[in-house]
Amino acid sequence: MKTGEEYLESLKKLDIEIYLRGESLENPSNHPVVKPSVNSVAETYKLAHDPEQEDLMTATSHITGNKINRFTHLHQNQDDLIKKVKMQRLLGQKTGTCFQRCVGMDALNALDSTTYEMDRNLDTDYHSRFENYLKYVQENDLVIDGAMTDPKGDRSKRPHQQQDPDMYLRVLEEKKGGIVVRGAKLHQTGAINSHEVIVMPTCAMKEEDKEYAVSFALPSDNEEIFYIYGRQSCDLRKMHDEKMDIGNFKYGGQETMIVFDDVFVPWERVFMCGEYQYAAKLVSRFAGYHRQSYGGCKVGAGDVLIGAAAVIAEYNGVEKASHIRDKLTEMIHLNESLYCAGIACSCEGKPTASGTYLINQLLANICKQNVTRFPYEIARLAEDIAGGLMVTMPSKQDLDHEKTGKYIKKYLRGCADFSTEDRMKMMRLIENMSLGLSAVGYKTESMHGAGSPQAQRIMIQRQGNIEHKKELAKRIAGIEN
Amino acid sequence: MKTGEEYLESLKKLDIEIYLRGESLENPSNHPVVKPSVNSVAETYKLAHDPEQEDLMTATSHITGNKINRFTHLHQNQDDLIKKVKMQRLLGQKTGTCFQRCVGMDALNALDSTTYEMDRNLDTDYHSRFENYLKYVQENDLVIDGAMTDPKGDRSKRPHQQQDPDMYLRVLEEKKGGIVVRGAKLHQTGAINSHEVIVMPTCAMKEEDKEYAVSFALPSDNEEIFYIYGRQSCDLRKMHDEKMDIGNFKYGGQETMIVFDDVFVPWERVFMCGEYQYAAKLVSRFAGYHRQSYGGCKVGAGDVLIGAAAVIAEYNGVEKASHIRDKLTEMIHLNESLYCAGIACSCEGKPTASGTYLINQLLANICKQNVTRFPYEIARLAEDIAGGLMVTMPSKQDLDHEKTGKYIKKYLRGCADFSTEDRMKMMRLIENMSLGLSAVGYKTESMHGAGSPQAQRIMIQRQGNIEHKKELAKRIAGIEN
Amino acid sequence: MKTGEEYLESLKKLDIEIYLRGESLENPSNHPVVKPSVNSVAETYKLAHDPEQEDLMTATSHITGNKINRFTHLHQNQDDLIKKVKMQRLLGQKTGTCFQRCVGMDALNALDSTTYEMDRNLDTDYHSRFENYLKYVQENDLVIDGAMTDPKGDRSKRPHQQQDPDMYLRVLEEKKGGIVVRGAKLHQTGAINSHEVIVMPTCAMKEEDKEYAVSFALPSDNEEIFYIYGRQSCDLRKMHDEKMDIGNFKYGGQETMIVFDDVFVPWERVFMCGEYQYAAKLVSRFAGYHRQSYGGCKVGAGDVLIGAAAVIAEYNGVEKASHIRDKLTEMIHLNESLYCAGIACSCEGKPTASGTYLINQLLANICKQNVTRFPYEIARLAEDIAGGLMVTMPSKQDLDHEKTGKYIKKYLRGCADFSTEDRMKMMRLIENMSLGLSAVGYKTESMHGAGSPQAQRIMIQRQGNIEHKKELAKRIAGIEN
Amino acid sequence: MKTGEEYLESLKKLDIEIYLRGESLENPSNHPVVKPSVNSVAETYKLAHDPEQEDLMTATSHITGNKINRFTHLHQNQDDLIKKVKMQRLLGQKTGTCFQRCVGMDALNALDSTTYEMDRNLDTDYHSRFENYLKYVQENDLVIDGAMTDPKGDRSKRPHQQQDPDMYLRVLEEKKGGIVVRGAKLHQTGAINSHEVIVMPTCAMKEEDKEYAVSFALPSDNEEIFYIYGRQSCDLRKMHDEKMDIGNFKYGGQETMIVFDDVFVPWERVFMCGEYQYAAKLVSRFAGYHRQSYGGCKVGAGDVLIGAAAVIAEYNGVEKASHIRDKLTEMIHLNESLYCAGIACSCEGKPTASGTYLINQLLANICKQNVTRFPYEIARLAEDIAGGLMVTMPSKQDLDHEKTGKYIKKYLRGCADFSTEDRMKMMRLIENMSLGLSAVGYKTESMHGAGSPQAQRIMIQRQGNIEHKKELAKRIAGIEN
Repeated sequence: MKTGEEYLESLKKLDIEIYLRGESLENPSNHPVVKPSVNSVAETYKLAHDPEQEDLMTATSHITGNKINRFTHLHQNQDDLIKKVKMQRLLGQKTGTCFQRCVGMDALNALDSTTYEMDRNLDTDYHSRFENYLKYVQENDLVIDGAMTDPKGDRSKRPHQQQDPDMYLRVLEEKKGGIVVRGAKLHQTGAINSHEVIVMPTCAMKEEDKEYAVSFALPSDNEEIFYIYGRQSCDLRKMHDEKMDIGNFKYGGQETMIVFDDVFVPWERVFMCGEYQYAAKLVSRFAGYHRQSYGGCKVGAGDVLIGAAAVIAEYNGVEKASHIRDKLTEMIHLNESLYCAGIACSCEGKPTASGTYLINQLLANICKQNVTRFPYEIARLAEDIAGGLMVTMPSKQDLDHEKTGKYIKKYLRGCADFSTEDRMKMMRLIENMSLGLSAVGYKTESMHGAGSPQAQRIMIQRQGNIEHKKELAKRIAGIEN
Repeated sequence: MKTGEEYLESLKKLDIEIYLRGESLENPSNHPVVKPSVNSVAETYKLAHDPEQEDLMTATSHITGNKINRFTHLHQNQDDLIKKVKMQRLLGQKTGTCFQRCVGMDALNALDSTTYEMDRNLDTDYHSRFENYLKYVQENDLVIDGAMTDPKGDRSKRPHQQQDPDMYLRVLEEKKGGIVVRGAKLHQTGAINSHEVIVMPTCAMKEEDKEYAVSFALPSDNEEIFYIYGRQSCDLRKMHDEKMDIGNFKYGGQETMIVFDDVFVPWERVFMCGEYQYAAKLVSRFAGYHRQSYGGCKVGAGDVLIGAAAVIAEYNGVEKASHIRDKLTEMIHLNESLYCAGIACSCEGKPTASGTYLINQLLANICKQNVTRFPYEIARLAEDIAGGLMVTMPSKQDLDHEKTGKYIKKYLRGCADFSTEDRMKMMRLIENMSLGLSAVGYKTESMHGAGSPQAQRIMIQRQGNIEHKKELAKRIAGIEN
Repeated sequence: MKTGEEYLESLKKLDIEIYLRGESLENPSNHPVVKPSVNSVAETYKLAHDPEQEDLMTATSHITGNKINRFTHLHQNQDDLIKKVKMQRLLGQKTGTCFQRCVGMDALNALDSTTYEMDRNLDTDYHSRFENYLKYVQENDLVIDGAMTDPKGDRSKRPHQQQDPDMYLRVLEEKKGGIVVRGAKLHQTGAINSHEVIVMPTCAMKEEDKEYAVSFALPSDNEEIFYIYGRQSCDLRKMHDEKMDIGNFKYGGQETMIVFDDVFVPWERVFMCGEYQYAAKLVSRFAGYHRQSYGGCKVGAGDVLIGAAAVIAEYNGVEKASHIRDKLTEMIHLNESLYCAGIACSCEGKPTASGTYLINQLLANICKQNVTRFPYEIARLAEDIAGGLMVTMPSKQDLDHEKTGKYIKKYLRGCADFSTEDRMKMMRLIENMSLGLSAVGYKTESMHGAGSPQAQRIMIQRQGNIEHKKELAKRIAGIEN
Repeated sequence: MKTGEEYLESLKKLDIEIYLRGESLENPSNHPVVKPSVNSVAETYKLAHDPEQEDLMTATSHITGNKINRFTHLHQNQDDLIKKVKMQRLLGQKTGTCFQRCVGMDALNALDSTTYEMDRNLDTDYHSRFENYLKYVQENDLVIDGAMTDPKGDRSKRPHQQQDPDMYLRVLEEKKGGIVVRGAKLHQTGAINSHEVIVMPTCAMKEEDKEYAVSFALPSDNEEIFYIYGRQSCDLRKMHDEKMDIGNFKYGGQETMIVFDDVFVPWERVFMCGEYQYAAKLVSRFAGYHRQSYGGCKVGAGDVLIGAAAVIAEYNGVEKASHIRDKLTEMIHLNESLYCAGIACSCEGKPTASGTYLINQLLANICKQNVTRFPYEIARLAEDIAGGLMVTMPSKQDLDHEKTGKYIKKYLRGCADFSTEDRMKMMRLIENMSLGLSAVGYKTESMHGAGSPQAQRIMIQRQGNIEHKKELAKRIAGIEN
């Protein structure tokens, strides 16, 4: 298992082509905008070497028997599923933001069972390829970007109906040694901090969409791949401001779009190529695992925000007011409600044919559906407790300024037991999570990551077994069919 | 293990003193108002003999190794806790109402660990008495009423401060062979369908309240105990109407107040007598188990109501309307959110010193807190889908009447594929669960059973580990304490 | 203007054919199930003679210049619309339930402008007939049932597509002196306490539905009309119990279905016959006025329930607990939010071509949409504050019983400053409004009366002027179309 | 009345001392961070000259009879109060953000009635001073900052209990010609775009807080006053990015803190000095007017955001999906619910002793309480409809870049009928309002402006007339006191 330092070193060796605000970055992992997101991923390596967190952060490879980072592990039982959620909550607590490494873990687990079933039913060779690849990932302790979301163009149309046929990533050509693909993947959270990219289709497909049913893995610095960095709220503070005004200056998330500009993929890295019947299964399993993930990571971030609200209440001198206590209680209640669903869908997991455990799909969708609601309310309550100052405070430069500094120190002090500076720091952290850099991950990503709310509702409707419920009601009402 | 029939026989042998609407009942279990609640309890016996449900409904006694009804079992591991919740959901689905036997199970489990710890720390003899009692209960497969809630009088005052000292049940006298107690217990759901009553204190106590720190067991038909039956919405329909208008004519819940009019309890049935320091522990464990219970039973009842809404949508001809499907999806979402918390607090359970497993207290309180909200919204949505007819329909007598019957059949028909009668039956079931007999259990009991909402909020506040969260936030904001 | 007594007398003179639980009633207004609803209507007469309420309860007829009961008045300006809402709140406060007379007022106002526009555009004669009728109503101070809702059968089909052509009330035959109609109207709240019935179509219609586009007025005791009384939650308590257990023993609502069994209507009472193009307008105006109404009457009932919760908090000894105060504040907040919409849609009312003022349709639909939500939450909070006793209390007979009475008095006492009996009365009132008789009006009728929630959503979508909003956004974003 | 141009000219003449990110600004109204907020205020001048908006934007001075900008007007009747709300909605629609001029209007109206009553009861001379001042304001068509919120320090302490006595602005010294004051005012929205500042106390006061009971007016560029500019989410984009990435590039809000560093105020500009008994009245009237304001301005901003969501749905190709239509309907419903309360509290306004109309306090607090909730939900729904791209899109520089530009244009296109650039602009506007610059005004200011949520709850509790409601309930339950 790599250490945090080794991970940072490994990133420097990658030759990634990446653009940010119109410029190509030479050494992206040191760029002030990118660096905090690298730190978040590095935490997944560091904590794996912390003896106290070993149980959550590491696992025993079912292939090699070696101790591995849990992020590269296939879930062997319900306990693995539960520990995944707890590991994610821990990392959310440590970083207060997105640590980006879950998509790869979720992609590996989804591919395992799906390729296994494809081979069994279609006489393909994908699962053995996948197993080789998995060994490589575990041995090298790699970060993987699980790339699913296509641009999609006009959402009222299927892939093959789009005016531009590249709106979903597709196979341009099958060659002897491999395939050539073209397209893009959007909203790629951990992409440029990853060693590898695993591409998967983005939705269920029919025969007409065959060319779009493709899955494969490539090194993230493949020559025909390039990245364009996405903006986030308040991103410029990382370039132009000091720590305080960033709020969470050490950790951050990130989002990029990846362009696959006619890229060659060798067959040994191809895990699906035309088996459109299996696209839906791969998508729903990946999405299911990822919806479970949110019952861990967002809960951990929620813990930070609840803590921040409790601290600022103390700094404001109102921590004993009954309405403040009640709001904190409500925040905890909502946050733990998310956690309950994360745990429940894990505890109700079942083995797939390959032996890898899959979460309970209904409950994982319940989990994610709540994630599209509760963080917003938790953040709203944090803003309520913080007070207006979180959006009206002067900058750190003004605090340091020879004339204005002393007035800010004097007038922005809350309860006299605490310093103005600490109060401002905590206000900025709340701003960071409710409006700023981490709000992107804590709120909008909670909404759309792993599928938008309506995607979960469709799954809940399908998985809810409404016919059984109808029978229950008829029996009690005394109705014979 | 008793069969359903044997249970009904055993009830007839009890010589219970019970009053209902100003009359003393001779054979309560056959009284039309009481009968449906007896049927609900009987279902807990019947299903234990159903091979398909054996895994959930039965367990192996950790004392005798015999197969026993799970309702008399002490939870030996997390799996037992999870199966408890699933058993409760199953029974909620079968009865659509409260089946009343959980309080006894929860009382047994709470008493086991609390008496164990009392004996260990105070050199008392309660746990061995309790174990003898437990054997008796398991061998005879008994229904037990777990009686906790005292009248409480003026809620702004502690037990010893009340104007009337009997507002909390108390020890009047300690005698050689036992104790004499006086008081009452309210809201006793399964009381008159039980063989035994276990009394417990209702809140944390200090030394001044010592006489109120008392727990014991007695046969339900003890001579100095009597019962007064509580009214429920639409209770008279069971006396004056036919099946259809009752909605759920077979199953029901019930509520009684029990009066202990200076009752003698032999020492071998006394499990606490003055150890006020343990009152809080016993209360919070019983409440915790019971808050978990609601993540099962109310979910099962919710399944019935969701099913009823789906059926009525079909009868109304609107089952494909997008807003109807969306409302059903929301109902399932809320219902499964409750279930998630029931499962999660079980899955996160831990052993107590006696070996009996206790649920995770934080998550059990989260569970119950949601139960005070979501069934109300599920019922509101069911009313939305049903349409106004559920509260404006004529009676069954009018349907049977020679003049009006044909007009009702003609005009109250919905979609022509279904009969008017079936439509009316389903409307009445929805009325039953949202306003009528079962609304008492599905809504108001969801609010107040196992403690009112504020009781959970206090526990959530205490268990939420706010100090740890504050540390997390400070670390990220760069604040040194 | 009639007095309350004169109204009661006038009811006795009506020869109405009415069935209740399979029996034909001789003197319905004295029947214990019906009587409370008569009392509610009578209050609309009594208060009109109260000098303090004169300003709200009466108006000056724009036809005759006479002082009339406001319930028979056509709104001449915004102030009339506002006073209507205030009058309704007042009556809701006095009765705590539905007082039934609004539908007639809303029908008169909707017919006035619609018949005026029909005459102007189609050269018909409806408006002059209507004006004669209105004079008759005002002069005799009549209660009118505004009958709109047809049975509708299969809701996925239009009127002419139904298997049974009578599922919407229709014209069977046009004769020289008038028309013959057949059908039924459901959910007729005030029907049997009315002197007259005004029938209106229930939805927008196209040419194929022409025979269903019919509106007319008839005396409520017409020979070919008969009524079947609808059941309500806890209705039997009015027959078998004493005052206390009824909760609100004096006032009540009611619901009936009316059957028009081939009824003849003379032309002078026909206000629409085949003009399908005007069905939508008549429906939406009536519905709009009635959606406004709910911003008054339900607010008044809410005042009673909030008051009941505040009283019971006092009786329980918890009126100073911060969470109780906060819940009462939330109840007031929600209730006044409803009122705001009732006032706003009135204040933004505009004159129609006939001069009669129409409410602002968008805001009236906003009003009603909130009414489908907030009373449920207000009732939930009332149940929270009341405590479980509201659904577990023994009956009044038990309180009066020689053995049980003294124990009930002793143990069901709350704060010692108040009597057990008063506490029980207030608990029963809360039960009445949240589960019992008045819950039908306060909750389910709030949901479905004046159109189900989806009906308002369709109107909000249509009236929301989304195109204008899109222009606003484009202008700010700098997008040229 | 000034034109927009004249207003801009007048700003340039002010010699304001202002600091922003550690620097003193020479010409603040042209600074890229400040300019958009100036544009918003300028809109209040421009629209007053638009004949179509004349009725809303202008009024007739009750002092001079001249036509004046409504922002300088005292409300003479309910119609004035209603037009105020409509004017604010209009400006919200035009700017999509805070236009800052309301606080001054609300301060003038609150001071008028309060000084009138002080003079009448205390024989002071404040009202005549105020009237002279008002004439000056109306004649010169000035923007006024109404400065209320003090730093407050430890919120658990009263003004005179603070460790630092300056935490509330106070009178240091009374001189012959006037007074000397020291302190600061926070969250001053329009401060540096104003010609004048009116200072008011921030809370109810007792005799011990006498020195803090002070109100006065000064030119905004007084020598002893200086300003420190507050940061807002994404503020740096205004300095470092082009129009597109700003979202709303033309209009903006702003927040500053004002320091009064021992400032002299001549008596003719002092409107309260020690009359602590009137502090509460002045505060609650100002707050009441300002809570009303939010029922206009935030509704206008909401219109823009709803429009933006509708446009982006079209660009994404999903405008016909039923769940999208339903979400837009819900957004409109919530937004109009706010408007209803704004209108209702105006329509129910009453004259004060001075003749100036005051809003209905209960309903104004209802209005604001909803404003602390609904904009958050509207913004959440906008994020739902927009999709994740709003927080993952590359920058405008990347769109313009020679390599990346064509890929962005290709892959970020939605429905082929619309350009990628327009889609990106609209996404940025939604980001602006939900996370970025205008989110500060649309969300956090909605929470805390005009008082935090708890402040409204206290007022609702006080104004809710709970005793009357208790009487209503007792009467119906048959309880004699």
